[in-house]
Amino acid sequence: MPDPVASTVSASRVTTVRQMVPTDANFAGNVFGGRIMEEIDLVAGIAGTRHSKMRCVTASFDRVDFLRPVHVGDLVSFDAELTYVGTSSMEIWVRVHAEPIDAAAPRMVGEAYVTMVAVDSADRPAPVPPLVLETVEERMRFEDGRRRMEERRRTRHPETR
Amino acid sequence: MPDPVASTVSASRVTTVRQMVPTDANFAGNVFGGRIMEEIDLVAGIAGTRHSKMRCVTASFDRVDFLRPVHVGDLVSFDAELTYVGTSSMEIWVRVHAEPIDAAAPRMVGEAYVTMVAVDSADRPAPVPPLVLETVEERMRFEDGRRRMEERRRTRHPETR
Amino acid sequence: MPDPVASTVSASRVTTVRQMVPTDANFAGNVFGGRIMEEIDLVAGIAGTRHSKMRCVTASFDRVDFLRPVHVGDLVSFDAELTYVGTSSMEIWVRVHAEPIDAAAPRMVGEAYVTMVAVDSADRPAPVPPLVLETVEERMRFEDGRRRMEERRRTRHPETR
Amino acid sequence: MPDPVASTVSASRVTTVRQMVPTDANFAGNVFGGRIMEEIDLVAGIAGTRHSKMRCVTASFDRVDFLRPVHVGDLVSFDAELTYVGTSSMEIWVRVHAEPIDAAAPRMVGEAYVTMVAVDSADRPAPVPPLVLETVEERMRFEDGRRRMEERRRTRHPETR
Amino acid sequence: MPDPVASTVSASRVTTVRQMVPTDANFAGNVFGGRIMEEIDLVAGIAGTRHSKMRCVTASFDRVDFLRPVHVGDLVSFDAELTYVGTSSMEIWVRVHAEPIDAAAPRMVGEAYVTMVAVDSADRPAPVPPLVLETVEERMRFEDGRRRMEERRRTRHPETR
Amino acid sequence: MPDPVASTVSASRVTTVRQMVPTDANFAGNVFGGRIMEEIDLVAGIAGTRHSKMRCVTASFDRVDFLRPVHVGDLVSFDAELTYVGTSSMEIWVRVHAEPIDAAAPRMVGEAYVTMVAVDSADRPAPVPPLVLETVEERMRFEDGRRRMEERRRTRHPETR
Repeated sequence: MPDPVASTVSASRVTTVRQMVPTDANFAGNVFGGRIMEEIDLVAGIAGTRHSKMRCVTASFDRVDFLRPVHVGDLVSFDAELTYVGTSSMEIWVRVHAEPIDAAAPRMVGEAYVTMVAVDSADRPAPVPPLVLETVEERMRFEDGRRRMEERRRTRHPETR
Repeated sequence: MPDPVASTVSASRVTTVRQMVPTDANFAGNVFGGRIMEEIDLVAGIAGTRHSKMRCVTASFDRVDFLRPVHVGDLVSFDAELTYVGTSSMEIWVRVHAEPIDAAAPRMVGEAYVTMVAVDSADRPAPVPPLVLETVEERMRFEDGRRRMEERRRTRHPETR
Repeated sequence: MPDPVASTVSASRVTTVRQMVPTDANFAGNVFGGRIMEEIDLVAGIAGTRHSKMRCVTASFDRVDFLRPVHVGDLVSFDAELTYVGTSSMEIWVRVHAEPIDAAAPRMVGEAYVTMVAVDSADRPAPVPPLVLETVEERMRFEDGRRRMEERRRTRHPETR
Repeated sequence: MPDPVASTVSASRVTTVRQMVPTDANFAGNVFGGRIMEEIDLVAGIAGTRHSKMRCVTASFDRVDFLRPVHVGDLVSFDAELTYVGTSSMEIWVRVHAEPIDAAAPRMVGEAYVTMVAVDSADRPAPVPPLVLETVEERMRFEDGRRRMEERRRTRHPETR
Repeated sequence: MPDPVASTVSASRVTTVRQMVPTDANFAGNVFGGRIMEEIDLVAGIAGTRHSKMRCVTASFDRVDFLRPVHVGDLVSFDAELTYVGTSSMEIWVRVHAEPIDAAAPRMVGEAYVTMVAVDSADRPAPVPPLVLETVEERMRFEDGRRRMEERRRTRHPETR
Repeated sequence: MPDPVASTVSASRVTTVRQMVPTDANFAGNVFGGRIMEEIDLVAGIAGTRHSKMRCVTASFDRVDFLRPVHVGDLVSFDAELTYVGTSSMEIWVRVHAEPIDAAAPRMVGEAYVTMVAVDSADRPAPVPPLVLETVEERMRFEDGRRRMEERRRTRHPETR
């Protein structure tokens, strides 16, 4: 495999917007938390794929708090960007906002830190390109990400390889 | 609303099993982490609904580590039980196991602690029945759950009501 | 192929629970009979796969009566267990119960006898392990299953191989 | 409610064709029997709705044998027509054929007799129009349908109302 | 590849009917235009596959006007037939009608001209059988189709191969 | 209803990205044209909803040419922006690009002009805010959109209201 070329945060940044339909919700119109998690995973996977140019699998979700309910009909946006990159793992920060169709502005629903691992065709972890940090904020987030990654390693399930 | 009657852990325990199909996976046959999260949320919601006899909404997911990959064709089981009950919130512990169809035994994929809140018809938190603890393990899990709930309150997003 | 090892009824018994969502129902909230049939087929396939450790295909459904309507929001449980095993075919008994979220107890919706056939990688019927019968009820169900299987053979469509 | 006007068999006859996609099948490309049942239920419901001009719910499926496997990519057609009409119930005969895309002709996969009941807005059985029989075959099928309906009544589950 | 045998318009004509469910609609019960387009594409693909006995891909949709809204619960029928055949492309005319369940007659919702291209296993355009025209109307539609195909070629996006 | 406040093009611009999964494609991995159309309709509806702050229904799609095939695994982005606004109708321009996961850059798949109409709670067309044009390109697109809208009116189906 050729040495992967470093890539900026903005090169893999991705946004997706969905209007919530009845399939996404229970019979009372509240969108399932699990449906939001599914979409967070998809957008994080797209960001990880864009950065690594490889297939990615989800290694973990950090805790997610749902700050307010989401309803059928709401426009929900998911903004994902890489914060930290290790050898083959990437931390992706996903922010979720919802706006009812007659709202002045979107309001935050929650945020998540998802760890994705790039894998080769035999499902083995594969090296990912370094992350080029261009702003002060990106450098701060990288340091925070490194700390979270170390904390995850320290506290993770004993069975994890 | 009548005073809710206390209910045991086993009365709301629930298991569900799914065989993973191509829809659940990416183009290489790896089941999406988000698809597992969605199913965790559904089974936790069923346990919460069975205990509270009310509609439930997801308040948070604790961190979830995926210990090994899940593939299309695997039988995946989700076992949910209540560990802790507050005024209107319930902590639900979900364990996930997967077995390839020719496997001798299922292997653990991950576990999650989901916080569900029972809501009335106007989406306001509503009181849930106390949890009757019958075994030493249930009492220990209840105490652990109480500690996690206090930790969640202490560290949660400032915007959460 | 090694000689298949006999396995008990309880080793392949499986339960799954779903909360019915709007996708499962017509525009008036009645869950489609075909949706229930689909879930019966899935859970029967899981039981057959667990027993045979092979891929299974559906050979027939016996008559299914829907005893009462199922609605969006109901918790519906599907309990499957093997009743009879032939050379490569298995009869699986699936019972379906539904409980509205505020109900005291689930009520029976229907039951089905599904015939599954284990197949090898070329889609040819393959031998399945014998069924170890441990209780009087299991022995009675096995004899009933044998009678139904003979009746099915006697009356089935002339085009069936 | 006005007296319902009699309607011919051909007025409610309906055909639908689907190309089977990976979602309809297990990981080996065999279409689920339950997926076929779901489609049978949908097309039977359309025929029943066309005849009764009311919402219909499924009361029962007679036994269904799957005569040959269906694969992803096959074109599967479902032909439904009413065979018998009682006070509020209708028997609908559905024939299923499949053709691989390069096949000379479709081959029969199975057939089903589905009983649908027309219901009013309170989910109570409602009278359906009489069936106008125009051919000798339709008259013979009507008599066969009447016999099957009596047999279903005689043998159905004791809990059925 | 053997020389493809000519085939009539009626040999590949296909009709499909769906009852619109909440999944097909927005939160107010209006069926998405995109959902109708998806079904138009499916039925056009079936007609193209039946004629060519090959896999087909969509090359273009002509303009589609939605003449009236479609609602959840409506029976919607899609009638597809080939109008023109070139070397490897086929023009398929799809008419869409909707009937509310208590309606006397279906009303037109829209029509579409879809261009499908038959492809071989390497995704290269492959020759399709000539179209046998049996009626005056079929001959007129063929001439109209030829004109539209020339117009499409003349005006299509410069990037199209 | 208060007089709607004018809004810029950029205020309602929206991008969404999806990774194509097996559900989106036929059995050979080619993504259905109809699936792309469905997503075009969804993103156009979000742009129209953001501009009008009302529910929108699809009035028409102009011709869409698919410039190259899309495959399972590709990242597909949909960029929508308003080009022209009439009394209650809006023209939305959607561009579609696809990138295989190991590609250097996305390539254009197609573009569409979708006409959306804002509707009130009784499904009647409702006035939408004027469009504030900020750049030369936006002004040119607005004029082009006005011409297309007049052409659509002139040539549309006689049955359209």
